[in-house]
Amino acid sequence: MSNLDNALKYFHDNQDSLTGAYLDLVRIPSISTNPENKEDMAHAANYLSDYLKKIDIDRVEIIPTPGHPIVFAEKKSPKADAKTLLIYGHYDVQPVDPLDEWISDPFQPELRNDNIYARGASDMKGQVMASILSLESVLKTNELPINIKFLLEGEEEIGSPNLEPFIRDHTELLACDMILNPDAGMVGKEEPTIVYGLRGLTYLEVRIDGPRVDLHSGLWGGTVANPAVVLSEIIAKLHNPDGSVAIPGFYDRIPELTQEERARIASNKTDDATFLAITGSPKLYGEAGYTSLERQGARPTCEVNGFYSGFIGEGAKTIVPAYAKAKISCRLVPNQDPMEIYELAKKYILDIAPDTVKTTVFLHSAGPAYLADNAPGSQNFAEALKAVWNKEITYKREGGSIPVATVMQRELGVKSILTGFGLPDDAIHSPNEKQSYSTWLRGIETLIRFYISFDEN
Amino acid sequence: MSNLDNALKYFHDNQDSLTGAYLDLVRIPSISTNPENKEDMAHAANYLSDYLKKIDIDRVEIIPTPGHPIVFAEKKSPKADAKTLLIYGHYDVQPVDPLDEWISDPFQPELRNDNIYARGASDMKGQVMASILSLESVLKTNELPINIKFLLEGEEEIGSPNLEPFIRDHTELLACDMILNPDAGMVGKEEPTIVYGLRGLTYLEVRIDGPRVDLHSGLWGGTVANPAVVLSEIIAKLHNPDGSVAIPGFYDRIPELTQEERARIASNKTDDATFLAITGSPKLYGEAGYTSLERQGARPTCEVNGFYSGFIGEGAKTIVPAYAKAKISCRLVPNQDPMEIYELAKKYILDIAPDTVKTTVFLHSAGPAYLADNAPGSQNFAEALKAVWNKEITYKREGGSIPVATVMQRELGVKSILTGFGLPDDAIHSPNEKQSYSTWLRGIETLIRFYISFDEN
Repeated sequence: MSNLDNALKYFHDNQDSLTGAYLDLVRIPSISTNPENKEDMAHAANYLSDYLKKIDIDRVEIIPTPGHPIVFAEKKSPKADAKTLLIYGHYDVQPVDPLDEWISDPFQPELRNDNIYARGASDMKGQVMASILSLESVLKTNELPINIKFLLEGEEEIGSPNLEPFIRDHTELLACDMILNPDAGMVGKEEPTIVYGLRGLTYLEVRIDGPRVDLHSGLWGGTVANPAVVLSEIIAKLHNPDGSVAIPGFYDRIPELTQEERARIASNKTDDATFLAITGSPKLYGEAGYTSLERQGARPTCEVNGFYSGFIGEGAKTIVPAYAKAKISCRLVPNQDPMEIYELAKKYILDIAPDTVKTTVFLHSAGPAYLADNAPGSQNFAEALKAVWNKEITYKREGGSIPVATVMQRELGVKSILTGFGLPDDAIHSPNEKQSYSTWLRGIETLIRFYISFDEN
Repeated sequence: MSNLDNALKYFHDNQDSLTGAYLDLVRIPSISTNPENKEDMAHAANYLSDYLKKIDIDRVEIIPTPGHPIVFAEKKSPKADAKTLLIYGHYDVQPVDPLDEWISDPFQPELRNDNIYARGASDMKGQVMASILSLESVLKTNELPINIKFLLEGEEEIGSPNLEPFIRDHTELLACDMILNPDAGMVGKEEPTIVYGLRGLTYLEVRIDGPRVDLHSGLWGGTVANPAVVLSEIIAKLHNPDGSVAIPGFYDRIPELTQEERARIASNKTDDATFLAITGSPKLYGEAGYTSLERQGARPTCEVNGFYSGFIGEGAKTIVPAYAKAKISCRLVPNQDPMEIYELAKKYILDIAPDTVKTTVFLHSAGPAYLADNAPGSQNFAEALKAVWNKEITYKREGGSIPVATVMQRELGVKSILTGFGLPDDAIHSPNEKQSYSTWLRGIETLIRFYISFDEN
């Protein structure tokens, strides 16, 4: 048998126990944003560290940060001139609320219809464990043809506050020739995907203060500005009637999409019927003049992520609320500067806000967009994907943000291979998150082929 | 000593214990909207029943309803031809949230600077107990010159769902010549007030459903309509730039204010500086072409009482929310039909809602406005007020709604004397509700004078 066949045989022979190792990680409720899950975060880091040691990784370290720890691991190839691959992942997950919409317990993974349902099953414990278990299959059967490093953080879902300083302070530890980041996912179950662009993010909050306290709306309604109404009027002015963003200067730095770029985006065969089916919205909607795929990945947006004012319980309470607040985030494309967009948005909101209320705008986070063709190793990865799916690769400009890719390019000088085995309908920040199990198994096979592809024999 | 002097002397001699009886009622957390306060509601009803029996009221009954019970009481005058006064009150209170904004415990009344701070101190346990304790002072010292009935409900703060049927089914029990409703308050500490108009209310809720679940805003932002944005755009269209309500037909049935009416409203000397001081808003705002007092009582409004969508916790969560909802209520003036206003508002909202979301509008409650000069007994009441304050009465068109006044006029054929001893800055639906103690004491003296005024001696 070839080196590859041996590794694949190990994987197939041990499929159940390898799956079990993945599900054990998923069972740990490592919600990074919840202080009450702090122990679970440490538990998840220990689990990964123990597993990596068990499969004979030379060096495994749990490195504290001011927040949740980073798990670093390194396995050297016996070959002197071996290249080094750095694999990025995160072991933290999103919160689970609203809990009552989950069909099964978010931390008791359940296999139904080829899907593993659990928080983190797809985003991204499935991807992290696929990377580790594929390496295990190679290590048990082969000489490793490349050096492999893991950088597994615990704060991705809270904006990675400690990751950039860590990378900046550990450029030697993290030095590499290639970076694999499997946090980006596929466009469809039968569409092996490499992402070559990511949107940036500017996330801000607007707060409107009116009366000192909630007022009786009968006694005072009509005499003072209502903060909920004022905030609505501001939000209504964030978009033009054609769906474009109305913040002056918002589009100034963005070149129009070229015909070549539009053709490349159109190579993704996801159609509007699929968008409708996945989102469940009555109708698609977005900036006029662009296709859904272009709106999704190549055009910036401005969304309200949530808002609150006054009385929202059951029944009726007759008040003029004291304040209203909204969380607003803009997804950005290359050339947009996240801090400039924040300043433009803030100025616009303060300009249109009336003097009948006090308006405050503040920043939550800001990260730039990313556009990177041909990251080192991506050709090998594309061939591994093609061999498993027996299909051409879909190259995609992604709507989400993976700021770590930008940071790594700047600090380590290496572009990331952005990929993964999550699917668009995985509900990754929603109730009933799932990972397609057969896709996950194909992912492991792809990763085995990718590692082995560096063997010159 | 005269009959009046005797009653006043009893009151002054027993001021501390009478105040104590009031505070004991305030200590009971009778929040009608909270299921967990059901026992407290019964406790408050029992407290009133026991107290009324203690002061020798002939007949006291706690009458069950499908919701919280009604306390009915009747004290007959020994005079054969005595007139009958029905006193309306409610013993339930508003919720206390946000609790952390209270300076002292909402159910541990605290006297600070002549104010009694507690939930319900003003709205309206203070008014209910003033009515009872003044009657006690008369009963202990005089022959009661009128028959007095009490109708004390426990559901005013949740829209009195069982009161109208109760009144309809008990017109004989409630038969009367005069009605006193002290739930309306004064325009200022030195302005004895009788309210002669009340606004009606149409309270509705709008819900916008977009995607099936909260979506990742990076992956899906820009491709579907955002329910929070759509709801904001709808709310922004509820008003014209001049502050008037934009719902077609909203003003159709309302006659313009006459010069005489405007002059009467202007007799209220509350100025804009006072409005600003009480509300704490940076600036007053309302429908162009009307004074603040006109906007407050004689013009209809459309307010957002609360709204919610998506993620409203600390920090950032990048989602396109699955839905957004808003509570919206219109204060109405005479001639506006609350159900017609509901239909007009619903039609308008559904007309302007885009087909990219599902829009639902439903009604919470509807009650008409009320305009009633010269309710029976109001001349006696005005004279009692004048005697205590030594000032002319302010006649006011009030912004709030007291639907029970309309119902009683229809079912019992009697207009209500709308008055009370609450003040505009009592924060009655807000944290730190208070009752001016000296005003409450003057209120009791006023009520004693009012009862005794029917004595022909």
